[in-house]
Amino acid sequence: MKIDLETAERMIEAAKEEAEKIEVPMVISVVDNAGKLIALERMDNALQVSIGLSQQKAYTSVVMRNTTEEVGKLAQPGNELYGIEVSVDDLVTFGGGIPVFDGDEVIGAVGVSGGAVEEDMQVAQAGVDAL
Amino acid sequence: MKIDLETAERMIEAAKEEAEKIEVPMVISVVDNAGKLIALERMDNALQVSIGLSQQKAYTSVVMRNTTEEVGKLAQPGNELYGIEVSVDDLVTFGGGIPVFDGDEVIGAVGVSGGAVEEDMQVAQAGVDAL
Amino acid sequence: MKIDLETAERMIEAAKEEAEKIEVPMVISVVDNAGKLIALERMDNALQVSIGLSQQKAYTSVVMRNTTEEVGKLAQPGNELYGIEVSVDDLVTFGGGIPVFDGDEVIGAVGVSGGAVEEDMQVAQAGVDAL
Amino acid sequence: MKIDLETAERMIEAAKEEAEKIEVPMVISVVDNAGKLIALERMDNALQVSIGLSQQKAYTSVVMRNTTEEVGKLAQPGNELYGIEVSVDDLVTFGGGIPVFDGDEVIGAVGVSGGAVEEDMQVAQAGVDAL
Repeated sequence: MKIDLETAERMIEAAKEEAEKIEVPMVISVVDNAGKLIALERMDNALQVSIGLSQQKAYTSVVMRNTTEEVGKLAQPGNELYGIEVSVDDLVTFGGGIPVFDGDEVIGAVGVSGGAVEEDMQVAQAGVDAL
Repeated sequence: MKIDLETAERMIEAAKEEAEKIEVPMVISVVDNAGKLIALERMDNALQVSIGLSQQKAYTSVVMRNTTEEVGKLAQPGNELYGIEVSVDDLVTFGGGIPVFDGDEVIGAVGVSGGAVEEDMQVAQAGVDAL
Repeated sequence: MKIDLETAERMIEAAKEEAEKIEVPMVISVVDNAGKLIALERMDNALQVSIGLSQQKAYTSVVMRNTTEEVGKLAQPGNELYGIEVSVDDLVTFGGGIPVFDGDEVIGAVGVSGGAVEEDMQVAQAGVDAL
Repeated sequence: MKIDLETAERMIEAAKEEAEKIEVPMVISVVDNAGKLIALERMDNALQVSIGLSQQKAYTSVVMRNTTEEVGKLAQPGNELYGIEVSVDDLVTFGGGIPVFDGDEVIGAVGVSGGAVEEDMQVAQAGVDAL
């Protein structure tokens, strides 16, 4: 299975509704199974830094095959991937990126940025749930 | 005037219809008055190189306050901006990027990539016309 | 269809035989449908610049969905993609990269570097023919 | 002594067998005495982030003339190379990269990525042992 544009838009729409509900303007990205952008929307007044971060969170989720939250735990001082975000370009090590699986295979990811990390995770989850 | 997300989506929708009419899958980007992404959609089966190119065309149109087609003419050997794309990162010097004005002021741009340059220009124009 | 490692190795083996026949040490890369490396072999005494070039040729073939030879023609002065290799990182605009299709879909590419461009193209073709 | 392509392939083959034994798909890279790629293989379903990481681990082992595990210890907060991966591009500071010596001289390295760090180290060691 692949995420086509129509599916990506449905995921973004659901994420956007969640973001509107908690009244935080977000940037929402959906990427394919190689971490490449399918669609992105920046809500009015979202942080400019979130344009890049939302894409990087989605990318990280695909190439690490994990949520950015979990990657972040492994990258803490004393843990086994400490320093990985320095070694590898475009990784993000805090929540807001969630991979999408078809069975065992990663078929894409959602990346959300704009609010507190908990809020980003909640909005990204809403995007994934729309599948 | 600013291009808000709703307007950007309307522009992308119009561009997408034009691309469907000529049956060429495109990537369509709309950026703000700083050249930063508001929304992007990649149609199914669009060229992967177009993900970046559509953004760069829109960016070029804003920072040069001109279409990428015109920038391309000025950048030909013997002309006055020859070599500018080497000096400045992320410029594109062929058609498909069109700035959007409010009076004298650039408020954003559309960038399209995926087909022949003529096709990209036609689809970008459809996006601008939706304003 | 996907190119798995076994297939990639068979393609490299065939390309390597062709390179040995013409007695030119080459670097041979096979990438997936996103332009990401599956396997690379550098023959003894191959040019060091070819390590990167062979990967970039394969990458270019995927993201442009065309041979690097054809991309190069479009990128000549006066042609419609003139300057594209300046705008887009990692593109190569001379022969030696050939995409692999499954029907209409790009599933990967071979990139070869090390000899004259004609030789690179011949060796890359041998790799593709092994499919 | 130099690592030629045939030797690099033998090392990769041994590492791959070890990876298959523990059932973790890995990316395995072998580099020369300058840290430059001789051969790389990505096993089916290996993490995409490992394509770069395996090369960087091998590179790090050569330029630091040490395992990435040891480099990682020196780079911990409070230790003498703390921050080195920020100063120097492409370093990796966790296990999976092992240099290969001929007497006192570094002649290359193996870099492995794809599993837990312990697994990467075990598979890299199998590659080195094949020499």
